[in-house]
Amino acid sequence: MMVVMKKGHSQRDLQAVLDHLQEAGLSGHMIVGVERTVIGVIGDVYPELSDELRSYPSVDDTVPISRPYKLASRELKPDDTAVRVGSVEIGSGSTVIIAGQCSVDTPEQMMATAHTVRSAGGHVLRGGAFKPRSSPHSFRGLLDEGLHILAEAGAAVGLPTVSEVMDPRDVETVAEHVDLLQVGARNAQNYFLLDEVGKCNKPVLLKRGMACSVEEWLLCAEYVLARGNKQVILCERGIRTFETGTRYTLDVSSIPLAKRLSHLPVIADPSHGTGRWYLVEPMSLAAVAAGADGLMIEIHPNPERALSDGAQSLTFANFRRLVEHARVVGEAVQRPFARV
Amino acid sequence: MMVVMKKGHSQRDLQAVLDHLQEAGLSGHMIVGVERTVIGVIGDVYPELSDELRSYPSVDDTVPISRPYKLASRELKPDDTAVRVGSVEIGSGSTVIIAGQCSVDTPEQMMATAHTVRSAGGHVLRGGAFKPRSSPHSFRGLLDEGLHILAEAGAAVGLPTVSEVMDPRDVETVAEHVDLLQVGARNAQNYFLLDEVGKCNKPVLLKRGMACSVEEWLLCAEYVLARGNKQVILCERGIRTFETGTRYTLDVSSIPLAKRLSHLPVIADPSHGTGRWYLVEPMSLAAVAAGADGLMIEIHPNPERALSDGAQSLTFANFRRLVEHARVVGEAVQRPFARV
Amino acid sequence: MMVVMKKGHSQRDLQAVLDHLQEAGLSGHMIVGVERTVIGVIGDVYPELSDELRSYPSVDDTVPISRPYKLASRELKPDDTAVRVGSVEIGSGSTVIIAGQCSVDTPEQMMATAHTVRSAGGHVLRGGAFKPRSSPHSFRGLLDEGLHILAEAGAAVGLPTVSEVMDPRDVETVAEHVDLLQVGARNAQNYFLLDEVGKCNKPVLLKRGMACSVEEWLLCAEYVLARGNKQVILCERGIRTFETGTRYTLDVSSIPLAKRLSHLPVIADPSHGTGRWYLVEPMSLAAVAAGADGLMIEIHPNPERALSDGAQSLTFANFRRLVEHARVVGEAVQRPFARV
Amino acid sequence: MMVVMKKGHSQRDLQAVLDHLQEAGLSGHMIVGVERTVIGVIGDVYPELSDELRSYPSVDDTVPISRPYKLASRELKPDDTAVRVGSVEIGSGSTVIIAGQCSVDTPEQMMATAHTVRSAGGHVLRGGAFKPRSSPHSFRGLLDEGLHILAEAGAAVGLPTVSEVMDPRDVETVAEHVDLLQVGARNAQNYFLLDEVGKCNKPVLLKRGMACSVEEWLLCAEYVLARGNKQVILCERGIRTFETGTRYTLDVSSIPLAKRLSHLPVIADPSHGTGRWYLVEPMSLAAVAAGADGLMIEIHPNPERALSDGAQSLTFANFRRLVEHARVVGEAVQRPFARV
Repeated sequence: MMVVMKKGHSQRDLQAVLDHLQEAGLSGHMIVGVERTVIGVIGDVYPELSDELRSYPSVDDTVPISRPYKLASRELKPDDTAVRVGSVEIGSGSTVIIAGQCSVDTPEQMMATAHTVRSAGGHVLRGGAFKPRSSPHSFRGLLDEGLHILAEAGAAVGLPTVSEVMDPRDVETVAEHVDLLQVGARNAQNYFLLDEVGKCNKPVLLKRGMACSVEEWLLCAEYVLARGNKQVILCERGIRTFETGTRYTLDVSSIPLAKRLSHLPVIADPSHGTGRWYLVEPMSLAAVAAGADGLMIEIHPNPERALSDGAQSLTFANFRRLVEHARVVGEAVQRPFARV
Repeated sequence: MMVVMKKGHSQRDLQAVLDHLQEAGLSGHMIVGVERTVIGVIGDVYPELSDELRSYPSVDDTVPISRPYKLASRELKPDDTAVRVGSVEIGSGSTVIIAGQCSVDTPEQMMATAHTVRSAGGHVLRGGAFKPRSSPHSFRGLLDEGLHILAEAGAAVGLPTVSEVMDPRDVETVAEHVDLLQVGARNAQNYFLLDEVGKCNKPVLLKRGMACSVEEWLLCAEYVLARGNKQVILCERGIRTFETGTRYTLDVSSIPLAKRLSHLPVIADPSHGTGRWYLVEPMSLAAVAAGADGLMIEIHPNPERALSDGAQSLTFANFRRLVEHARVVGEAVQRPFARV
Repeated sequence: MMVVMKKGHSQRDLQAVLDHLQEAGLSGHMIVGVERTVIGVIGDVYPELSDELRSYPSVDDTVPISRPYKLASRELKPDDTAVRVGSVEIGSGSTVIIAGQCSVDTPEQMMATAHTVRSAGGHVLRGGAFKPRSSPHSFRGLLDEGLHILAEAGAAVGLPTVSEVMDPRDVETVAEHVDLLQVGARNAQNYFLLDEVGKCNKPVLLKRGMACSVEEWLLCAEYVLARGNKQVILCERGIRTFETGTRYTLDVSSIPLAKRLSHLPVIADPSHGTGRWYLVEPMSLAAVAAGADGLMIEIHPNPERALSDGAQSLTFANFRRLVEHARVVGEAVQRPFARV
Repeated sequence: MMVVMKKGHSQRDLQAVLDHLQEAGLSGHMIVGVERTVIGVIGDVYPELSDELRSYPSVDDTVPISRPYKLASRELKPDDTAVRVGSVEIGSGSTVIIAGQCSVDTPEQMMATAHTVRSAGGHVLRGGAFKPRSSPHSFRGLLDEGLHILAEAGAAVGLPTVSEVMDPRDVETVAEHVDLLQVGARNAQNYFLLDEVGKCNKPVLLKRGMACSVEEWLLCAEYVLARGNKQVILCERGIRTFETGTRYTLDVSSIPLAKRLSHLPVIADPSHGTGRWYLVEPMSLAAVAAGADGLMIEIHPNPERALSDGAQSLTFANFRRLVEHARVVGEAVQRPFARV
């Protein structure tokens, strides 16, 4: 960390900062520049240090040098991490398709969806049982019954499954029914939930919070990793910006950036990221071209009757077309589809 | 809700939408304009309808007309709601000062803080026992011990207390120790937690999520209200923007806007909202002038030794000055300090 | 346009709005809903109407139904517009590569750059002569001399050229030297400049302002089109968001969205959009996969000696690799490179 | 500036950076930390250096230490700058009210407005003659005729005037008619216009661009100051965020922040900043309480007939009320109204 002193600070101000560092077992290395004095902090910097130092009136600013995440960092582990979900590996250089319904509804519809995902070439079946809805008056999921329907559909077609968990109390139950636990964007910084999935022996799909920088997203992953669960997949799903023509702004550049900074696999969710069914295919292809390890796509037999998020769900026909196109782009960028 | 049809839609497309509405027990009222046809939906619109209709390729867009929140709306309840916290009333036209440490640390420091809050003229004592920290390697609070220390300090000086709850499993415990339950910005859309505090018989301080629009913030409040707890206080604490000179951007205009749309009290947290101790006073005065029902301020006997967020904590002397100035501004806008 | 009346409005309030519409030569069509009354405005709505109506205290909101841009809209002109720049056509289904130096510097370096663009398979040569720099103390371009150097380099290798114009007084001069006039992001809403290039008989490359929504961007194009110049190419170059890991956030989804709403060609500038040389290739491939009509790339013989924006410039070797990869992705999405 | 090297860089990489600095007449001072090596740059850093160094693959990042603006900085000039407009001084500790019509329309209406501004206690009369409008089909101002009408109205009531200039070619003309030249938000980074007003001997009101950070806003001021014009007033008018309940987000915290960093006066424009007439008063009071040197308010005799921005214009009665309340808040924070 660098500590930038204000212009016109006194020798006593400087000493106070150096004493603070020394008490903390660190040492300070001064650089006297033309305009300012900067203190380089040497030693094992702890997260609170920045706030402590910035509360000194003579300190103008502090500048972090080391990254705040360690376990998620490629500096610690230079080679890619691959996460196995059922029989599929995510993060080992191929493209993986996760698809299914935003909300599980009837067993018949879920089964039709599962058959479509399988026959189109998809790898993992998704289905929401617990739904985060911005209105308390919206449908909030079939809960346990939904998990059963999803598990049965997955088993019937031989695909592993993924579903969201929202409450630390439900982690165990959801983990019993699915192969991959999803933590949603609204819970990306729900640290007690992250702790709980971190103690679990199931891979975790961690969506980026819509107000999280890439660095903060990696810190969310760090929570899970720090608890011992090393099977984390990152998922970009759109950030909050001023643009209203899309529901969120899918930050495609976060995919190569996160992969550069971290060894964890990164996938994209263009369905939530755009909120518009007609943008899902072009943004899927964009994500694959940018280096994503996979896609997460919402489909529904009858989008106009879906219990949630119909506007961003693809029909089966549109989904099949998307998969064919994603396959071609994947091959063009040397990321062929994973084998099932 | 208004349904905007695409140009060049067919009669059959139109009929499909009208049929959809009829099946849902609603009726459609057509307006054929110069450029487009619009269908006004009459009846009790449900939250999923918009997504269902936008999945029709012939539908260009849907436009909500009614507000998605009901219980939080001033249309339902035109007069202000006042929430009692201990002996203080928030939302009845006066200015209330909530102050204390971001994190509870030693009993001695907490007691010194409590005395300062009381003697300066503050109304509620805050202290964090469970801390949401972006890094898993940061100090995360004294947990139950912190709640005890806070409760004792509050009792000693005769001030009600507030502390954050982050895990649905902790709601009962925290509610036993404090007078006001805080739901933090990172949990503003943690719906299971909102459900839990909604079932509780304690007032709730609901911070705005950093990516929540005012409408979405009111929907978060709706969750708590819908569970039966009518004692909700809203707290603006800064939104995420591109500006990096402050930690967040305190959206002062959200205060009069939320008060116009809702009957709930609205306070401001300029400490987290700015992240800079030297901006806390001017932004406190701004919030009071804009009509806030109160302020939430971080102070610490030794900001440079605080266990969290020292950079935004005020010294006791700066806090006393702020309270004096806030009192004068409160009087200027006819919002004198609440009586203790 | 829809006019949403406040709850509890009087008959007189309603009449005032209807009278206002009638005076403006429009008619109003009322829909009385369960919660609110809405007036659909029939006729040729003018841009000021919304503000006029929202100044009535009894009006809660107005909702636009027609799009504010006409000439740029695909509703007016359903088929794609192709813009010819020299011998290359942009917008007719192929991928076009525009590349060159952010700033023109020496004739030797510019010539080396031109040869590289040509031999790698690029189509248009760029070079900045007038540079918008955020600091007045930065290098601001070689001005006229730069235009000459650029024109000579282009002529030597047989490539058309593009350069930015920033001042309405310079439009004529720049237009004499280059084949494509660029309007930069900081001038996207400089309406006098847009007027001036709109009166010019040269194609215009219009960058999206970093705070412009897609709708506002199309309105910027509308300015140029309204003056008679139909040769407009849109260029996405990143919007301002809270993310600091990249310089801007390249809004890839704006490419398919703009192409859906408008008939104009859309290209992407991943160099400015990311500000990081190591993200330029993945984001170039993403843009092509999402349907961009072309790319605009910064290269430099010695990025570390470039007079501006070295951090986002590619070396010649990296550029050649990018072009090869973009060619493959272009073919995968049925957008082969344009013939030179 | 600090240069952060990547982990695992070689000695040769380090030497290349040091050589680069030496060639530039600077020196490097190394700090070898536990995790990384950092080079402190000593000497007079130039703006391009950061980009140059970040183009070295072995450089992880560069961190500015000195502020990029000099003339605008309080470090160069610690005491407040006061700018005289007609007989009023802005920036010398009092509160100044600038008010008038967004667009000049008829002489009668402008005169009525002028009388209201004067009698209510306002100090400067505004009126737009050249209007930046997002649609080319909107009313764009009365141009020269508008300047005449404004000047006459100002003279009639004895108030100085302010109007926007948008085209470098118009600076001289506008400067002949008004006492204060306004540069609007959309032109905040129109560097040729800034150059032109910088060469002019009239005070300049510089609005913050809606995508400009406070630092970039001060760099815009630096352009004007660098040309020799020292009479710059900054004006916060709202930034672009995801919130749609207001037109922009008035960043009140930028007022005390800009005043801390710079010696220039700072005023606020809550009319454009909120776009909602009912938020103008509370946000005016907030700005004054936060330390603004003045307010810029839109009023109109008949907001529903205004030629632009009616939705944010106050009626005369509402304006008078606002001025009375602003006066009281100004006195509460020791910023009484300026004497006329």
